[in-house]
Amino acid sequence: MARRLQPTSAGVVFVIGGAEDKRGRSTVLRRFVELCGGRQARIALVPTASSRGQDVVDDYDVLFRRLGAAEVVALRPETRVAAEDPALAARLDDATGVFMTGGNQLKLSAVIGGTAFAAAIHAAHLRGAAVGGTSAGASFVTEHMVAFGTDGTTPKQRMSTLAAGLGLLPGVIVDQHFAQRNRYGRLLSLVAHSPSLLGIGLDEDTAAEVHGGHTLEVVGKGAVFVIDGSAAVTNAHEARRSAPLLVSGAVVHTLPAGSRFDLITRRLIDHEEVSRGTARRLVAEDD
Amino acid sequence: MARRLQPTSAGVVFVIGGAEDKRGRSTVLRRFVELCGGRQARIALVPTASSRGQDVVDDYDVLFRRLGAAEVVALRPETRVAAEDPALAARLDDATGVFMTGGNQLKLSAVIGGTAFAAAIHAAHLRGAAVGGTSAGASFVTEHMVAFGTDGTTPKQRMSTLAAGLGLLPGVIVDQHFAQRNRYGRLLSLVAHSPSLLGIGLDEDTAAEVHGGHTLEVVGKGAVFVIDGSAAVTNAHEARRSAPLLVSGAVVHTLPAGSRFDLITRRLIDHEEVSRGTARRLVAEDD
Repeated sequence: MARRLQPTSAGVVFVIGGAEDKRGRSTVLRRFVELCGGRQARIALVPTASSRGQDVVDDYDVLFRRLGAAEVVALRPETRVAAEDPALAARLDDATGVFMTGGNQLKLSAVIGGTAFAAAIHAAHLRGAAVGGTSAGASFVTEHMVAFGTDGTTPKQRMSTLAAGLGLLPGVIVDQHFAQRNRYGRLLSLVAHSPSLLGIGLDEDTAAEVHGGHTLEVVGKGAVFVIDGSAAVTNAHEARRSAPLLVSGAVVHTLPAGSRFDLITRRLIDHEEVSRGTARRLVAEDD
Repeated sequence: MARRLQPTSAGVVFVIGGAEDKRGRSTVLRRFVELCGGRQARIALVPTASSRGQDVVDDYDVLFRRLGAAEVVALRPETRVAAEDPALAARLDDATGVFMTGGNQLKLSAVIGGTAFAAAIHAAHLRGAAVGGTSAGASFVTEHMVAFGTDGTTPKQRMSTLAAGLGLLPGVIVDQHFAQRNRYGRLLSLVAHSPSLLGIGLDEDTAAEVHGGHTLEVVGKGAVFVIDGSAAVTNAHEARRSAPLLVSGAVVHTLPAGSRFDLITRRLIDHEEVSRGTARRLVAEDD
């Protein structure tokens, strides 16, 4: 079986910056349930990253049902052998959403990356299931995953490390707890090393939903940062030890709730353009 | 007497992000003394922002002399009446450098802004004296001064406030302790409100020296950030309360020691350009 899948862009990708509201209006998680089909939602909960036991499962189970989901099924591979089990992977067959909890994203890449279970998540996504997660679960979704790093505003050499993620959103890196843990520097340093990748920084209780692999929309309390290093001048290939990096000309987008951004053109989609787009579609439908 | 001076660009402006090394190599302060004329340096020390007494004067007096300055004179107006005293202002007549300490920059704007003492600093600068300071003293140098604000990476409405500064570097706002106090959000929010101003964020123990009002060069341990909002799309005029701001398309430059940046064209001056410039000057001199 070919485990190296082509990047897909069929369903919605929904990534949360961690610490999403679970007691109040739960705006972010409510939106995820809606994207999974609301009253028809069958959500596969993947708590593999978490160091918590059954209670992390119970918490999300109660939450997603309170927010209207029809069914929540916990699938928790803890080893690569478990993640290769066809019976476990088959339980994703009727999922309308896959949600990966926070914790340690390296456990997700180490246990799930490239397995039958990962392939089944890709297949669900191709079928139209919403795939996402919070914190570690958000970072793991992409092809290139932030593994770990140090905090701070100034980008420095050797500040952060990449690993191979699940493989959705191939041209993107997702970092989370962005403002709260001051991860601007590490995301900028990663983008300086790999300007082909667009850096996405998610504040806590804030989500980016990505439709069709390219239209990002922001939900929640904080902001989503997009760092575009494609035109930047940098010394990232020659900076020594932990020196501050030269990164001149990075383009940064700070996007609060309701903002829409095109990951392909790397530009804001403004309200006017959205309205015009809608108008054109309506005209086309009238034809 | 006209107190509203024209922006000047005669001498060097030297702004430090605070917490500069005073015990070791003192790279940043050593460079300031050099710009003041080294063994010929006569430095006017202005500790008005500081809440410390004579010891802040003694500390810098010892330091600047250790680094080679010929003379250090403390001039400390504590009221606007004192700052209007022509005898005090006259003591700046033979200064080759003016250094304002850290503390509270609003005290600098409130006590010194628009006075005879401020006019004398401008006059010294026009004569070629290096004018600068650290932390609060750095922020005060500009026409538009960051008065105070809250920390954090995400730009939010009402996060920071401007006041009128000394009046050098008219198109620039200087923020300090930049990475250490996580002031990215507040500087970006100020630039979103006033895209005509270029935001300059100084890390601790790091300085920007500005020659001729437009060429910035970086000295010290950390980085200097330049935030250019001139092409950004923003909702800063309509965002409510403390909402996260939309700022899409800000161009950010992170510049470690040795980097040179043109504040007029808002572009990095790369080593190649610097070399070509030098070559042209050498040719011109040969002519």
